[in-house]
Amino acid sequence: MQHWPLRVMRLVDHAAREHGEREIVTAWAGGRVTRSNWRDVAHDARRMAQALEALGIKPGDRVATLAMNHSSHLTAWYGAIGMGGVLHTINPRLFDDQILFIANHAEDRVLLYDHAFAETVERLKSRLETIETFICFDPPVEDEDSFVGWLAPHDGDYAWHEGDELDPCSLCYTSGTTGNPKGVLYSHRSTMLHAMAEVAPDSFNLSADACVMPIVPMFHANAWGIPWAAPLTGCKLVLSADYRPAQLCDLYRDENVTHSAGVPTVWLGMIEHIERTGADLSALRYVTIGGSAAPRAMIEWFREKGVHVMHAWGMTETSPIGSIGGKPPGWGEMTDEQQIAYTMHQGRTPFGIELRILGEDGSVLPRDGLHSGDLQVRGPWVIRRYFKEVADAAADDGWFGTGDVAALHPDGTMQITDRSKDVIKSGGEWISSIELENAAVGVPGVAEAAAIGIVHPKWDERPLLVVVRAPGSDVTSETICAHLETQVARWWLPDAVEFVDELPHTATGKLSKKTLREQFADYRFANAAEMVGR
Amino acid sequence: MQHWPLRVMRLVDHAAREHGEREIVTAWAGGRVTRSNWRDVAHDARRMAQALEALGIKPGDRVATLAMNHSSHLTAWYGAIGMGGVLHTINPRLFDDQILFIANHAEDRVLLYDHAFAETVERLKSRLETIETFICFDPPVEDEDSFVGWLAPHDGDYAWHEGDELDPCSLCYTSGTTGNPKGVLYSHRSTMLHAMAEVAPDSFNLSADACVMPIVPMFHANAWGIPWAAPLTGCKLVLSADYRPAQLCDLYRDENVTHSAGVPTVWLGMIEHIERTGADLSALRYVTIGGSAAPRAMIEWFREKGVHVMHAWGMTETSPIGSIGGKPPGWGEMTDEQQIAYTMHQGRTPFGIELRILGEDGSVLPRDGLHSGDLQVRGPWVIRRYFKEVADAAADDGWFGTGDVAALHPDGTMQITDRSKDVIKSGGEWISSIELENAAVGVPGVAEAAAIGIVHPKWDERPLLVVVRAPGSDVTSETICAHLETQVARWWLPDAVEFVDELPHTATGKLSKKTLREQFADYRFANAAEMVGR
Repeated sequence: MQHWPLRVMRLVDHAAREHGEREIVTAWAGGRVTRSNWRDVAHDARRMAQALEALGIKPGDRVATLAMNHSSHLTAWYGAIGMGGVLHTINPRLFDDQILFIANHAEDRVLLYDHAFAETVERLKSRLETIETFICFDPPVEDEDSFVGWLAPHDGDYAWHEGDELDPCSLCYTSGTTGNPKGVLYSHRSTMLHAMAEVAPDSFNLSADACVMPIVPMFHANAWGIPWAAPLTGCKLVLSADYRPAQLCDLYRDENVTHSAGVPTVWLGMIEHIERTGADLSALRYVTIGGSAAPRAMIEWFREKGVHVMHAWGMTETSPIGSIGGKPPGWGEMTDEQQIAYTMHQGRTPFGIELRILGEDGSVLPRDGLHSGDLQVRGPWVIRRYFKEVADAAADDGWFGTGDVAALHPDGTMQITDRSKDVIKSGGEWISSIELENAAVGVPGVAEAAAIGIVHPKWDERPLLVVVRAPGSDVTSETICAHLETQVARWWLPDAVEFVDELPHTATGKLSKKTLREQFADYRFANAAEMVGR
Repeated sequence: MQHWPLRVMRLVDHAAREHGEREIVTAWAGGRVTRSNWRDVAHDARRMAQALEALGIKPGDRVATLAMNHSSHLTAWYGAIGMGGVLHTINPRLFDDQILFIANHAEDRVLLYDHAFAETVERLKSRLETIETFICFDPPVEDEDSFVGWLAPHDGDYAWHEGDELDPCSLCYTSGTTGNPKGVLYSHRSTMLHAMAEVAPDSFNLSADACVMPIVPMFHANAWGIPWAAPLTGCKLVLSADYRPAQLCDLYRDENVTHSAGVPTVWLGMIEHIERTGADLSALRYVTIGGSAAPRAMIEWFREKGVHVMHAWGMTETSPIGSIGGKPPGWGEMTDEQQIAYTMHQGRTPFGIELRILGEDGSVLPRDGLHSGDLQVRGPWVIRRYFKEVADAAADDGWFGTGDVAALHPDGTMQITDRSKDVIKSGGEWISSIELENAAVGVPGVAEAAAIGIVHPKWDERPLLVVVRAPGSDVTSETICAHLETQVARWWLPDAVEFVDELPHTATGKLSKKTLREQFADYRFANAAEMVGR
């Protein structure tokens, strides 16, 4: 059969050739809406490849972005890779020191950034050691350092750089909870296989007649692969540089968005907005929820709106799709309760991915839904080694430790029960902080909740539940615990509930248990002192 | 990222691990129904790999089958490949000399066959020069030469043969219209990429909750890829060794088949049966029609039953999916007539495949829907070189001449207008024999129709329409031509209509224009003589 390297540029070539007029809509930070299409994005990517070559950028060099979601950022992904470069997406929500570390470690030569982050760039410029060229995507005034001005001299008469499918195409750092951020270097091949898997009906279910709006920033784990999978199908793509729920709801309505994706925090904001304003989800039919566990109430809310929830799990190290909840056999005959229980799990593995769980002694645990253990993953879009590291992150046979604790069920679904470091170890048994939190946010009046282990003289650790009340609510500790009693084992009940105005979050919008643990480092349970005294 | 060769055995490994209990149902030639599942098929494939090694079969050796669709045949596909062998599916409907040529040319070492073809095997045995072992899938009495008996000594404790993803995994000969049959040798990689593309929503739209019944024989072009794509998704698979419409309709009903695929001839038989008996299609939602063009009346019939028709095009040399009719953007807003017009075309290219059309001077023609030209194809699952040939069948840049004549439309669809050799050349212009035939079968009372070019003294060729009347019909030449006048250009109207009891078909069920042209080799139009006399 024919030689056909799995190179990423084939994606945008296919879209430009077969779906050239299919729209790419951008809502910019100020609310302005512009329209492009796959043909124009492919053409401008060729012009950008020429512009990079004019700067002396060579294949393999890193080209960084510090930007939200918009069509110029999309163009930059394909432009950087099209000339053989490695796209490096930097998370603008990171602290200065992290951004500096990442950009210097990656040896980025060019930085393309949003005007919204111009101050950050100015502040850090003198310490960005390898960046020679700074280009602003959307300056108030266009000049030769703006994206449009920079491309202006180039005509797009350019043939993509060819090479091996194992060449790197992009780089993304995980912020990590300890030590310096680590880079995950994706290959053309891994990116292509991930994209092909993602469009499947049991994955994101993407087709040419879909309209997809990722509410996942493009600096976050390949934006869950959507900017790669979209041109593969020729679907319409809607990008919003701003995550205000009002703007997102306008886009759902005006653009007839059928598919969307985001973390639970984003959906919480959307749901609150919709409930308050009476906005609706319009043509939306599928949402993918990942990043952290979707609470039951969120799943039920979408179901009531006629939207199918695909609950997913993954990480930067898995490109990121590791599991996703496509409809199982017999879905149509399942009761509501069965469907919800299925959706609460983090889905099944797409073809390519394997999962297993290990006990504390390193033995492989059964897939019976009863055992929980350390989750390992392997497959063609799973990391082997972090960028510039000398040792593999995965074992020789591919198994990579995820840091999650999970159960594998007989129906093939995976259920995250906790992060390894968040699990509460009480008297030799494990309490899932996530399950406690999910149960707690089901209590009316609870806006957000976090469970952490607090040192306990008898039990090693016992759970503390930290709660943010919903606006106007005066829900009490007693009400919450009474509700929890109906949801979890009695010995899982928190020893105390504390109320706070807000919980700490990471740069990617996830609950920061690490910061919370620091805030409560000196906390002790009242009854613990008694117990010691006894 | 991780090293993960695209090897076919990963398909059945995935299905056995993630969808082990999902059923594989077989209706055997006698009507008996048996049930297996992915776990058992994977296990028996390991036992077969052991049995092949016990015979001294080596990686790369060809293992042939002469069989209809059933679970043992499916097991044999994976068993042969699992030990590193090359699966060679032989079409039992071929003439003796063709079977002999193919099996000897392939140097098959083992033949697994259905009892239904035992007579053929006995008749040819002495002339099958390289086959050492004959195994019958379903003998009246089990013994050590039966499939079950042959596997009996083996326990399935076997690790698949590992190797390069470019290694061959299967071989299929095209019967061809001239010269000897030619072998298409598929690689693990090409087969895997084809399978990944096939499950997409815009292709076969396969998922774990689907139930698929191919009415495509497994000896025919990888059975359109379904035996590879099914384990990738973990769908339920229904195989019928018998194509009697009554048996197929029973299976639709009893097994809740949601997806099916077959050539128009098969569907004609099904439709006739259903109209006559009042059987129904039950849960069927998607049919893929390929092999030759689906007539409009067939598409309309399925639409009225609520079944979505995916009209596809491909050939043995393209694995076979070259184009398929997924729903285009705006499908929901299209009128019935627009949807039908879209479906009449042979669909769009899945990601990976490129099409172009060439004029008689070799120039690339525009994709405007107005020009027709010689269709060329290239992509990762398109042939480069026929088995054992010394020259490539495709050009250096991958373009392979299909022998079809087609138009490419602005909406991305491809429309086969004829086979290069079937097109009727009248006065320097081309008349599409397929369009004439499609229009003719839309006339009430016409069961089947074929248009061929007949030598004409003035116009070089003029169309002759050869018609099989439906049972009980006395439709006339005048009625047919009156109807055709409303469908095609006036100068396309056939110069004569001849009625026959049946039309010749090839071994794969397609209309044999070659045989028909031989039958009508001496035919001359009555008016042609006059014209010469003028």
